[in-house]
Amino acid sequence: MKYVYLFSEVEEVESRCRGSWEAVRSLLGGKGANLAEMTRLGVPVPPGFIITTDACLDYLSDGGMSKDVWQQALEAVKALEQLTDSRLGDSSHPLMVSCRSGAKISMPGMMDTILNIGLNDEVAQRLIDQGRDSRFIYDCYRRLVQMFGNVVLGLEDDLFERLIDAQRRQAGVTDDSGLEAEDWRALVGRFKQFIRAHTDQDFPSDPYDQLRMATEAVFKSWNSKRAIDYRNASRIPHDMGTAVNVQAMVFGNTGEDSATGVAMSRNAATGHPEAEGDFLVNAQGEDVVAGIRQTRPLQELKTLMPDVHQQLLETAQKLERHYRNMQDIEFTIEGGKLYLLQTRDGKRTAQAEVRIAVDMVEEGLISKEEAVSRVKPAQVDFFLHPQIELTARRQAQVIATGLNVSPGAGVGRIALDSDTAEQWGKQEGKDVILVRSETRPDDVHGMLAARGILTSRGGRTSHAALVARQFGKPAVVGVANMEISMENRCIRIDQDLVIPEGEWISIDGGTGEVFSGKQPTVIPEFEDRHLIRILRWADEIRQLGVWANADYPRDAERARAYGAEGIGLCRTEHMFFEPERLPIVRSMIMADNPRERREALDKLLPLQRRDFEGLFRAMDGCPITIRLIDPPLHEFLPAYEELVLQLADLKLQLQHHKSIQEMDKTLEEIGLKSELLERVEFLRESNPMLGLRGVRLGILYPDLTKMQVRAIFEAACKCAGEGVAVHPHVMIPLTCHAAELKAQQAELEKTAKAVMRERDIKVPFHFGTMIEIPRAALTAGELAETAEFFSFGTNDLTQTTFGISRDDAESGFLLDYLREDVLEDNPFDTIDSNGVGRLMKIAVQDGRRTRPDLHVGICGEHGGDPRSVAFCHDLGLDYVSCSPFRVPIARLAAAHAVLKAGVSRKGAKP
Amino acid sequence: MKYVYLFSEVEEVESRCRGSWEAVRSLLGGKGANLAEMTRLGVPVPPGFIITTDACLDYLSDGGMSKDVWQQALEAVKALEQLTDSRLGDSSHPLMVSCRSGAKISMPGMMDTILNIGLNDEVAQRLIDQGRDSRFIYDCYRRLVQMFGNVVLGLEDDLFERLIDAQRRQAGVTDDSGLEAEDWRALVGRFKQFIRAHTDQDFPSDPYDQLRMATEAVFKSWNSKRAIDYRNASRIPHDMGTAVNVQAMVFGNTGEDSATGVAMSRNAATGHPEAEGDFLVNAQGEDVVAGIRQTRPLQELKTLMPDVHQQLLETAQKLERHYRNMQDIEFTIEGGKLYLLQTRDGKRTAQAEVRIAVDMVEEGLISKEEAVSRVKPAQVDFFLHPQIELTARRQAQVIATGLNVSPGAGVGRIALDSDTAEQWGKQEGKDVILVRSETRPDDVHGMLAARGILTSRGGRTSHAALVARQFGKPAVVGVANMEISMENRCIRIDQDLVIPEGEWISIDGGTGEVFSGKQPTVIPEFEDRHLIRILRWADEIRQLGVWANADYPRDAERARAYGAEGIGLCRTEHMFFEPERLPIVRSMIMADNPRERREALDKLLPLQRRDFEGLFRAMDGCPITIRLIDPPLHEFLPAYEELVLQLADLKLQLQHHKSIQEMDKTLEEIGLKSELLERVEFLRESNPMLGLRGVRLGILYPDLTKMQVRAIFEAACKCAGEGVAVHPHVMIPLTCHAAELKAQQAELEKTAKAVMRERDIKVPFHFGTMIEIPRAALTAGELAETAEFFSFGTNDLTQTTFGISRDDAESGFLLDYLREDVLEDNPFDTIDSNGVGRLMKIAVQDGRRTRPDLHVGICGEHGGDPRSVAFCHDLGLDYVSCSPFRVPIARLAAAHAVLKAGVSRKGAKP
Repeated sequence: MKYVYLFSEVEEVESRCRGSWEAVRSLLGGKGANLAEMTRLGVPVPPGFIITTDACLDYLSDGGMSKDVWQQALEAVKALEQLTDSRLGDSSHPLMVSCRSGAKISMPGMMDTILNIGLNDEVAQRLIDQGRDSRFIYDCYRRLVQMFGNVVLGLEDDLFERLIDAQRRQAGVTDDSGLEAEDWRALVGRFKQFIRAHTDQDFPSDPYDQLRMATEAVFKSWNSKRAIDYRNASRIPHDMGTAVNVQAMVFGNTGEDSATGVAMSRNAATGHPEAEGDFLVNAQGEDVVAGIRQTRPLQELKTLMPDVHQQLLETAQKLERHYRNMQDIEFTIEGGKLYLLQTRDGKRTAQAEVRIAVDMVEEGLISKEEAVSRVKPAQVDFFLHPQIELTARRQAQVIATGLNVSPGAGVGRIALDSDTAEQWGKQEGKDVILVRSETRPDDVHGMLAARGILTSRGGRTSHAALVARQFGKPAVVGVANMEISMENRCIRIDQDLVIPEGEWISIDGGTGEVFSGKQPTVIPEFEDRHLIRILRWADEIRQLGVWANADYPRDAERARAYGAEGIGLCRTEHMFFEPERLPIVRSMIMADNPRERREALDKLLPLQRRDFEGLFRAMDGCPITIRLIDPPLHEFLPAYEELVLQLADLKLQLQHHKSIQEMDKTLEEIGLKSELLERVEFLRESNPMLGLRGVRLGILYPDLTKMQVRAIFEAACKCAGEGVAVHPHVMIPLTCHAAELKAQQAELEKTAKAVMRERDIKVPFHFGTMIEIPRAALTAGELAETAEFFSFGTNDLTQTTFGISRDDAESGFLLDYLREDVLEDNPFDTIDSNGVGRLMKIAVQDGRRTRPDLHVGICGEHGGDPRSVAFCHDLGLDYVSCSPFRVPIARLAAAHAVLKAGVSRKGAKP
Repeated sequence: MKYVYLFSEVEEVESRCRGSWEAVRSLLGGKGANLAEMTRLGVPVPPGFIITTDACLDYLSDGGMSKDVWQQALEAVKALEQLTDSRLGDSSHPLMVSCRSGAKISMPGMMDTILNIGLNDEVAQRLIDQGRDSRFIYDCYRRLVQMFGNVVLGLEDDLFERLIDAQRRQAGVTDDSGLEAEDWRALVGRFKQFIRAHTDQDFPSDPYDQLRMATEAVFKSWNSKRAIDYRNASRIPHDMGTAVNVQAMVFGNTGEDSATGVAMSRNAATGHPEAEGDFLVNAQGEDVVAGIRQTRPLQELKTLMPDVHQQLLETAQKLERHYRNMQDIEFTIEGGKLYLLQTRDGKRTAQAEVRIAVDMVEEGLISKEEAVSRVKPAQVDFFLHPQIELTARRQAQVIATGLNVSPGAGVGRIALDSDTAEQWGKQEGKDVILVRSETRPDDVHGMLAARGILTSRGGRTSHAALVARQFGKPAVVGVANMEISMENRCIRIDQDLVIPEGEWISIDGGTGEVFSGKQPTVIPEFEDRHLIRILRWADEIRQLGVWANADYPRDAERARAYGAEGIGLCRTEHMFFEPERLPIVRSMIMADNPRERREALDKLLPLQRRDFEGLFRAMDGCPITIRLIDPPLHEFLPAYEELVLQLADLKLQLQHHKSIQEMDKTLEEIGLKSELLERVEFLRESNPMLGLRGVRLGILYPDLTKMQVRAIFEAACKCAGEGVAVHPHVMIPLTCHAAELKAQQAELEKTAKAVMRERDIKVPFHFGTMIEIPRAALTAGELAETAEFFSFGTNDLTQTTFGISRDDAESGFLLDYLREDVLEDNPFDTIDSNGVGRLMKIAVQDGRRTRPDLHVGICGEHGGDPRSVAFCHDLGLDYVSCSPFRVPIARLAAAHAVLKAGVSRKGAKP
């Protein structure tokens, strides 16, 4: 069994692994495989060899290194000596090597490294005698002893640093650059004494002992507590082991013809196809990272060492073509000779990711599919919202953190109520952030006028969160340590920080952070031509339709601009909350008799019709799914507690009135409020979520839904008459029994047909139902006898399937559950596939068994969540519908689902 | 094809139907089949024949009677003429027949009948000439014409009655008995004129025309609107058709040796094995029913006509032995000769049903299985509750009606609050009915002290209903037209009826009726030896275990007396509501820090332990399923609105105080209430049903559930040490995710084991979970990895599966749904098999796949509902658990499920 491979033996490994690069990485570790691969490509890499993960696993199970492994390592050292014309421990041409761990999956910070193996007193002295800089040599030597003491012998690094501190004090200098060769030499001695005193053994001066002990230490590090914890947290398996990379040392600090640096093969911020980077002449790699010296831009290397610069660019390009991705390269120049120490895919901004993906397709490097699959949904999201400028963000103070419920940066003056927000924002043209403990439907005007929303209560699907996402307003909710004082008109954070209304504040709805003051923002360009190409390619790939949830014509227009192919959810009741309509809606609810109710409905009809006309025009040619009234009626009335307190207050006032007129006015008001309170009490429910809403309203108050259907079809007929292609899909909410649907739908279809007869025009239409109650999913076969389409309302379906009220839970125990890992994911963010998903699967299967052409979509918040989109694809849905701002993300996610599942979902398991 | 059968040809029909009595009834109709069967038995039945349902169906599809059918009918008439030695239309020996419809399934009131066919002017005159009473003959004749006009010619019966009225006025008499022969004769003439005037045809004097038209009319009546509506309402298929029975007339009113009457083969009230009945000499059948003349008890017939009496008893016995059931017989004696006109299974009281079933087993008439299957669950229920005395009930005034949520009669003085109820009921020993708008946990002392509970709000599973059933208190809830005035201490029904507190009122929780005044009640004997035998037989048959829901030792004892084999649900939180404990529970909830909480828990521990000790002793040898705390904590605190109003009130008081001391006291109280309010606000949820309760509490406040488990196991160890056989099953409520169960159960098992180690005693125990959330059912396979048993909480499971809050819905839209037939059954009464049932099936299958010996039961209210018990049997559950008062019913229902499914459920489809 071969346990040790030279970097140059990569072909042998590959054939052993039957051509699987995955298997090569398993055997050699990620770092080793990359070094070997670079060697094969002819990239200048200091020579070295890899002791395989197999050797590590054997070592761990046997409790020691087998002779076989060590023998092979010694042979590899020999080969290394030949390649470098030097010998380990030889004082005239000493070989120095590094010894590094390298697992298959990178574990940053877990990596154990020992540099400069091969140095000892004799070798050091001889090198100095040969003219090498003595300070450099003793610095290298003390690093070896220090790393060895720490990594191999388990002494805390701090202890060595304290000895260095002492040396500095003794030498009267403040930093390491002030220490001379003699100081470092003295420290080597002290380090060795320290090791002897604390470990009962000497630092091994034999380089072979150094190498062997270093190798064993790396093996053992795989099972260190730190590594096990890391793997547990990152869900990396424990049975992979780590490889050990032994590589000849190169030094960038041996003179003015030496240097060290990092380079990106393209611009990591913009994606512009030109290499960029930083370097330092006569320096070590860690100096570049540490930022002690001012680095120089890569371009300057062109002047200093034109050939090496050219070689570097060519190498970067070669690596890019090989890995088909932008590369992040570490290089060292020793005596005018270029060495690459590492290459890996480079980190980049969202803009760069998109541009590079598109450019690489044009360069013929990758396919369109690969380009689409590289862009992450979160990167698309970035283009849709203003962002806090990067430099400012680094310096700004985070004063609080909440739930990141609607992305983007919002900057404005604090407004503590919606009327103030509207006054300042709409009429005075100021930027405002609406700050409330929580929002209610009658706050919508303030939310619309604000640049962002900040609340102290509520969860991911609270009213504030839902509305903010709907309108693309940045929002942070549930900031528990923020108190709002309406008396003093200020907010208080953690009791001590007080910010008065009118002051500037900044929020980042993408991270949930709240900053003090006015932070500068930048607006990424959605019209980015590269992004548009990526999304078009995604459209070619995806099989799911992408629709949007939109209640108003302006939302519909935006959705269409973002690529929505239909409206999956138009919530008609939002129209009821508009300020000029609410009184009519209330009079409808307060109606004592059918006649009064009809009068109110007659007033609402033309208003609703006008809204629908706007929608039909905006979505000319696309289907529009209109949901009939859903929320409990009491949502349209003032809150119970408010009324009770107002009444108590009014009664108190009665005692202080001075005039009969005043008293009469108050008494009248008391009468009105009492009547209102009576109605609110009547409509009050202990669990409104499970109460009189949705189709239940339609069955009890058929005139209400009939009015809505009349408005839809009057609008549809009118628009159709003007040449607009209309496709109304009428959706009945909250169905839990086939009988409800049958009763309601039959009535409503009659109304629809009556309107079309009256107008003498026929429009294509469909009736269908939400599936948002477990029983609806369980009896989908029966529902599909009536419904022509299903739309999963996964918000409510998640609530009832889990028995969890989202508003209560997301500001309460659900957070504890997530924090304490009882639940891995918030089911309101990502569809719970085992529970809610199982119901969806039952519904799709049973529904299509009854009606093979049943059209099925989803219109819950999950429709814009990439993992949920993938689930919907696998389930065979026809479309997902989400807020307009999530449409581009859903388009991409739908394409990803296809790419992940294979060519077609027809072959994939749902 | 044979369409007409003589009564005597029953064997021929039977062989045509291959021995299936079902098929015979389909062909001949129920009435015809019975008449034929009696004829075969040699019972004296006036001869006749049946025109089959086939003939009816042919008639309806062809639109007319085929020659074949009429030809066969004419031949049957000939046979009848031979049997009776008379001829149809022959004026010397005229045959008179009745023509009656008779479908397979009896449709009372739908039956069309024409009597006395065969009479015409000539025949009538000749009969009178032969010496028959002319008044009798013309009365018969006018009946023929009247029925014919109504049934065959479609004229409203009222019109004929008006002509009779006119005749009475003309004769100056007030009722029919005053009309003479001439009056009837004149009416025959008027009827005929009337028919001619309104139908353009004559009444047919040819008896063959009479018979043919009557037969066709009966056929046509099958598709009358009235019949179709009836079948739709009763879910009877429309494709069965009706048979026509043509039978020779017999008359009980031809002299003192004639009579007519009805008889029961046993006592229908008590089941005593002696025939009883009523008769009238020289009368017609309808006179007995009409109650115009005082009937005579059957015994008197023994003196009047001893032979006939003896023959009647023997016939009744013969029929009873044949039909193996108590018979309800109609008989007529014409000229000293007995004829039976009908026999059918007799209606009887619950006591009679039970006694007869047992007696018939002893008489060898029926098997034990049949006896068990005859007793209906509702009949068992009757034995468990006092009932309003029958005669009194007929005379009493029903003043209101509500939901019949807990059976039995309750009679007492109205008490409008629980303290009054307790004062009067417990301390003054009065009978009281607690009347409230709705009840809360702190009303329990008043409910316990009352004879019954009456509320104006709440549904079938409201607090009032649940507690009432639990304690077997009669209760009527949701009486919407009742208002309670606490100011005037009275109740008001329909605005106009006012009853002050302290007045007597009576309720029937089995029917939902409310009566004014003090109605007398009777208490059926549960210790009825016949009932006990039936239930023992049921126990031998059933496969489901029957357990009870019991929170207190006294309930457990009662449950055991009623036959419970274990406790399926002990709700520990009910113990928390006891008046002396509530303050401790509140201090636990109000605790500012873990130490204070621990102190409160330490005080609760010995109290809970004592409760459990009592339970273990009461259920020595039986399993006890103890559910850990379930309700949201705010249920233990005062209601939010109450506190708000109290605070407002206290603040108002501040302004009127006279002394500093008073003010200080109020201020202190304001402080305390404010603190309480703050906590209530913190715990307040918009949908408490879907909130922080059940296992969620256990995960957030692990000390609370650990205290409970400690109490359970300390009690179990103590009792086991005293020789009691204890079997604690610890049940975790509201699980929706396997991770919750894993986390909580592991902790609690540790506590249990620790206690057993401390006490150095081991008791057998199990841990398991409620399945009451859809997701729990959907992921039952995962839950069963941890849970050793499942118990379906079908109340909550129904709420979440339907998305219906029972409290809101059962006093609101659910009632509308049931009233308007949107739903056939209330899913809170009977398990919804398509939705909730499907989830249960998934849970049982997946759970047992993971853990084949998984023990599965149900502890929701449905456990006492017979149809739901059958469903649980089919599903293969191990047991049902219900309130102690439902245990006998569940025992019977479980046996019925076996008898219905066949010998064993192993062969039956779930």
